[in-house]
Amino acid sequence: MYKLYYAPGTCALASHIALEEAGADYKAERLDFKANQQQSKEYLAINPKGRVPALVTDRGILTENPAILAYIAQTFPKAKLAPLDDPFAFAQMQSFNSYLCSTVHINHAHKMRGYRWAVEESSFADMKRKVPETMAASFALIERDMLKGPWVMGEQYTICDPYLFTIAGWLEGDGVDLATLPKVAAHQKRMSERSAVQKVLAGEKA
Amino acid sequence: MYKLYYAPGTCALASHIALEEAGADYKAERLDFKANQQQSKEYLAINPKGRVPALVTDRGILTENPAILAYIAQTFPKAKLAPLDDPFAFAQMQSFNSYLCSTVHINHAHKMRGYRWAVEESSFADMKRKVPETMAASFALIERDMLKGPWVMGEQYTICDPYLFTIAGWLEGDGVDLATLPKVAAHQKRMSERSAVQKVLAGEKA
Repeated sequence: MYKLYYAPGTCALASHIALEEAGADYKAERLDFKANQQQSKEYLAINPKGRVPALVTDRGILTENPAILAYIAQTFPKAKLAPLDDPFAFAQMQSFNSYLCSTVHINHAHKMRGYRWAVEESSFADMKRKVPETMAASFALIERDMLKGPWVMGEQYTICDPYLFTIAGWLEGDGVDLATLPKVAAHQKRMSERSAVQKVLAGEKA
Repeated sequence: MYKLYYAPGTCALASHIALEEAGADYKAERLDFKANQQQSKEYLAINPKGRVPALVTDRGILTENPAILAYIAQTFPKAKLAPLDDPFAFAQMQSFNSYLCSTVHINHAHKMRGYRWAVEESSFADMKRKVPETMAASFALIERDMLKGPWVMGEQYTICDPYLFTIAGWLEGDGVDLATLPKVAAHQKRMSERSAVQKVLAGEKA
């Protein structure tokens, strides 16, 4: 049985949905970020980065969404969550996830976590003000060039979909109007109608 | 034949070395970042993100180092650049690359590219001052927990190695003394002795 460490409202939702879609036998373990539990001695022994998601497997612990998502797809091939026999299509999927991880999530992180990269309050405020612009720019690219529809990679639902769903869920809070992104908005709606998504969201809110 | 767009001194070096190690038939196409060629109309038609690396294949164009690296490993299995038949080991490798891409490279980028996330000169200066601290912290984790030795994943040379080599090559410029990181320093030396690495570096400098 897998164990997934997550916190509500974080990017761990992507891996959480993927586990559910895969039909994996897993337990979701909630961390209390308000109590800074991700920095507790116990959790740092699991993930020294002090972040989520972390997936405990019988072989060891995995971190980083793009890695966990591809692992779930490869470990549960019957769920057809990735084009496993086509290295080019697999790479396109990984490219999408890498962009979310290293550009879009990072843009978002500058709203509340400027202390990772600066010291002064004035810098934090400056970073925070720019988030609507950087998130809008990243999602304009996703809307125009990357989201094929109906799913990210086209007809096949893949591990890109829960990841996009997760990060697009931050847009309104980041000051980006979803109405300016009709394909992303339709994807959000399509995702929210899936039973796996509904089950995971209900569990994270409970 | 593949075509790899790169610029000297950038993270594209990782994919460049991997292509060479794989024995791929490729051409390296240099962009002049000082002339801002990565933002030219011609290049934005290839990679709308205006970044490197971008790998042109006969199926289409791939971007993002972690995706390109895994693609090279899967497309040239004889080069044994990844544990392709072991999803857990593959995920560990991907986790390492994702950390380099989304945390370590991002820390580094705050030295010269603060304009991506802020507007004020004072913020840029603040970010720049913190880079030695964030890079040292990331590499302390790599040194302590992640770099197994002699290669990143242990006995097998993988696509993690050129990526670590590339980013560790920025440490001195980022104000981190490589002498404080003996395992990373030994890895740098070991990499610099490989003929593929020497060939690629000579080509990028020529």
